Order: sequence, then C-alpha cells, then structure tokens
Amino acid sequence: MDTMGRHVIAELWKCNIEKLNDMAFIERTFVDAALEAGAEVREVAFHKFAPQGVSGVVIISESHLTIHSFPEHGYASIDVYTCGDRIDPNVAADFIANALGAGRSEVVEVPRGIGPIEVMQKSGEGSYSSTSS
Amino acid sequence: MDTMGRHVIAELWKCNIEKLNDMAFIERTFVDAALEAGAEVREVAFHKFAPQGVSGVVIISESHLTIHSFPEHGYASIDVYTCGDRIDPNVAADFIANALGAGRSEVVEVPRGIGPIEVMQKSGEGSYSSTSS
Repeated sequence: MDTMGRHVIAELWKCNIEKLNDMAFIERTFVDAALEAGAEVREVAFHKFAPQGVSGVVIISESHLTIHSFPEHGYASIDVYTCGDRIDPNVAADFIANALGAGRSEVVEVPRGIGPIEVMQKSGEGSYSSTSS
Repeated sequence: MDTMGRHVIAELWKCNIEKLNDMAFIERTFVDAALEAGAEVREVAFHKFAPQGVSGVVIISESHLTIHSFPEHGYASIDVYTCGDRIDPNVAADFIANALGAGRSEVVEVPRGIGPIEVMQKSGEGSYSSTSS
C-alpha cells in the first residue's frame, strides 16, 4: 500500500453547543462522514467527559477521523486523515462541520507519507448551517 | 477546559519492519508512550490489516495518539495531540520513535484551539535506536 495520505485539520468554532455535548450524535455523524467520503469503517471509540466534552475516533481502512469537542467554547477540533488518493478527506470534514453547525472554520491540509511535511492553507472563514437535530 | 492544545505530527521512516507489523507491541508502546508523557488513558482501539499494517488510537483525557504503519515501506505515520500545557506531546512522540527504531523522522508541531493554524518545524533528520525487541 502506498504511504501517500491527506490529513485535513479543521478547527470548528461557533458550533451548536448541544451537539458538541451529544456523544451519540457525534459518533453517528462521524461514521456517516466516513461513509459519505467512501471510507470503510473498522473501529469506533468515543468517550464522554464530565462535566462536558466528547473525544472520539473512527478508524477507517484509509486511516482515521478524530474529534475533541469543547461545548463551553463552541469549539470542535477535527482531524480527517485518508491514505491513498481514492478518498477526499474534505468531504468528511465538510460533512462534520455542517452537522455541528460550525459558524467559523479554519482548515489546513497536510500531505502525509511523501517526505518533508508542508501545510496547505485551505480556508479561513466559513459558515455551516445545521442539517439535522 | 481551555481549548489550547499541541499536536505533534511525526513521519517515521526506516523503522523496524517486524515491530511495524506487531499490533500487540504497537498497542503496548502507545499506551506506555501516553503514560510516559503523564497522560490518562481512556480508550484503546487498534486494528491489524491483511496482509500487513496496523492502525490504532489511544484516546487520552488530554486528546489522542494515533498510528498508521506501513511495514513494507518501513514507515509509520504518527500523531500525538495533547490539550492544555501540562503534557508535552514530544515526550510521547520521541518514546514511540525510539521504540519503533525509526532511522529518520520528520516532525512538526501544530498549535490547536488558539485561532489561525500555524505549523512549527521541529526537526528533519533523526536517528533512534530500538530499546526493546
């Protein structure tokens, strides 16, 4: 298998606070995001923190998706990493940003597995409306 | 909880090929790396691929550690993300690079949760000798 991968780092701000604290919703959203991008889900592990916040990962055949949510700040820290060139990690990242109702996003893409690490700035401001409750 | 975090991306090359394919060893190494850095382990999920390669994550109270290994290329793709300023993710990343016997490493650190994403180049070439078999 080729080592080449694409790693999208998305900082999502002004998200829906209730959703950021809803582990079942986040877990479902992440699995759906992986499937939407055409990935194959292998392992799912999520953890709810007290008094608030959710961390979790979906391991896919093509690498992983992770989240750490901070409901008190309306912030979610997202990583979507896909190996190969079959899948676009931005599809999953956009799906997640939309589902969490992110009002502002900062996104960079980091090429992985191909030598010296360089970072491509993807976007500064963005606005997503929530599509499900 | 403060959103500030430190995310170390480490591209490890020329690793010990047998270790890159040993899921039990990698899982133990990742848990030990988290503990070595002073993190609190919450969830552990690893997956072994056929014919080779291991993907996995350790979710810690302070965020996560992930790996995707490509034994056929001597390559391991590592992320260590820690929230707050109590823990240094480089401690865990160095522990992992050493355990996998990485002959060359490319490491960058990405500040998370503090606004626009910038990347700090950490190191280019490195050499780690394996400490366990």
